[in-house]
Amino acid sequence: MLTFYYSPNACSLASHIALEEAGAAYEPRRVDFGAGQQKSADYMALNPKARVPALVTSRGVLTETPAILVFIAQSFPEARLAPLDDAFALAEMQAFNSYLCSTVHVAHAHKVRGTRWADEESSFADMRRKVPETMSACAELLETHLLKGPWVMGEAFTVADPYLFTIVQWMKGDGVDLAAFPRLSAHRANMAERPSVKKILARESAA
Amino acid sequence: MLTFYYSPNACSLASHIALEEAGAAYEPRRVDFGAGQQKSADYMALNPKARVPALVTSRGVLTETPAILVFIAQSFPEARLAPLDDAFALAEMQAFNSYLCSTVHVAHAHKVRGTRWADEESSFADMRRKVPETMSACAELLETHLLKGPWVMGEAFTVADPYLFTIVQWMKGDGVDLAAFPRLSAHRANMAERPSVKKILARESAA
Repeated sequence: MLTFYYSPNACSLASHIALEEAGAAYEPRRVDFGAGQQKSADYMALNPKARVPALVTSRGVLTETPAILVFIAQSFPEARLAPLDDAFALAEMQAFNSYLCSTVHVAHAHKVRGTRWADEESSFADMRRKVPETMSACAELLETHLLKGPWVMGEAFTVADPYLFTIVQWMKGDGVDLAAFPRLSAHRANMAERPSVKKILARESAA
Repeated sequence: MLTFYYSPNACSLASHIALEEAGAAYEPRRVDFGAGQQKSADYMALNPKARVPALVTSRGVLTETPAILVFIAQSFPEARLAPLDDAFALAEMQAFNSYLCSTVHVAHAHKVRGTRWADEESSFADMRRKVPETMSACAELLETHLLKGPWVMGEAFTVADPYLFTIVQWMKGDGVDLAAFPRLSAHRANMAERPSVKKILARESAA
């Protein structure tokens, strides 16, 4: 039995949906960021990074979305959530996930997490002002070069899809005009129709 | 035959060393960032992200260090550069690489790449001032929690090792007191003795 730690609307949404798509048996546990629970001694003992997601397995704790996503795909191969028998295709999928975590998520984080990288209020305001520009540039690259369509990798749904969905969910609030990105918008609409996505969004939005 | 695009002392160093450790046949090509070559039409056609590393294969172009590292390990299994038959261990290695790309490399980039996330000179100065603090915090987490020792994953050398070495090479310049991190320092010293590392550092530092 897996235990999955998440925070609503955080990047943990990607792994949360992937666990559901995999048909995994897991216990979801919400980490209350409003109450600072991610910095509690109990949680820090589990994940000293004080972040989500964290996936507790019989072998130990895993963190970092790209790592957890491939682990889910490998642990539930019958769900066919990654091109596990094709090193090049797997690397393409991993490059996509890596771009999301190291560039797109990071651009997004400059809206409200400026304290990670600076100390002055004026810097935080400057960072916030730039987020619509940086996130729109990311959307353009995703739309034009990286999303094969209809799913990230083409005809096959993979764990990269819930990750893209998670990031696209943030874009409107980041000042991105999604109407300018029809392929991303179509991907989001396709995702929203999946039972796994409906189930997990309902769970994460519950009080 | 693979073609590998790198820039000296950039994060591409990790994949450069990994290719050498794998015994891969590849042609190294330097991208001259000083001349803005990464933004040339030719290079952008290859990698629209205008970054390094990029690995040209017979199937297409791969980008993003964590993806390229696992691809190298899978393409040259006899070199035993990753725990390919153990999904949990592979995920641990991937989590390590993902932390380096999305947190540590990003913290480092705030020293000289502030224009990615802000527009004002005062913000760039603020970001630069904080780099010793953020990179030291990353070094502490790596030293205390993530580096198993002597290699990243323990007794087995993996592609995570050249990646850690690459990042630790940056730390002194980022204001980190490496003497305070004996395990990272020992890892760096062990890496520096490997023939692959000597060869690639010599190539990258050549005029």
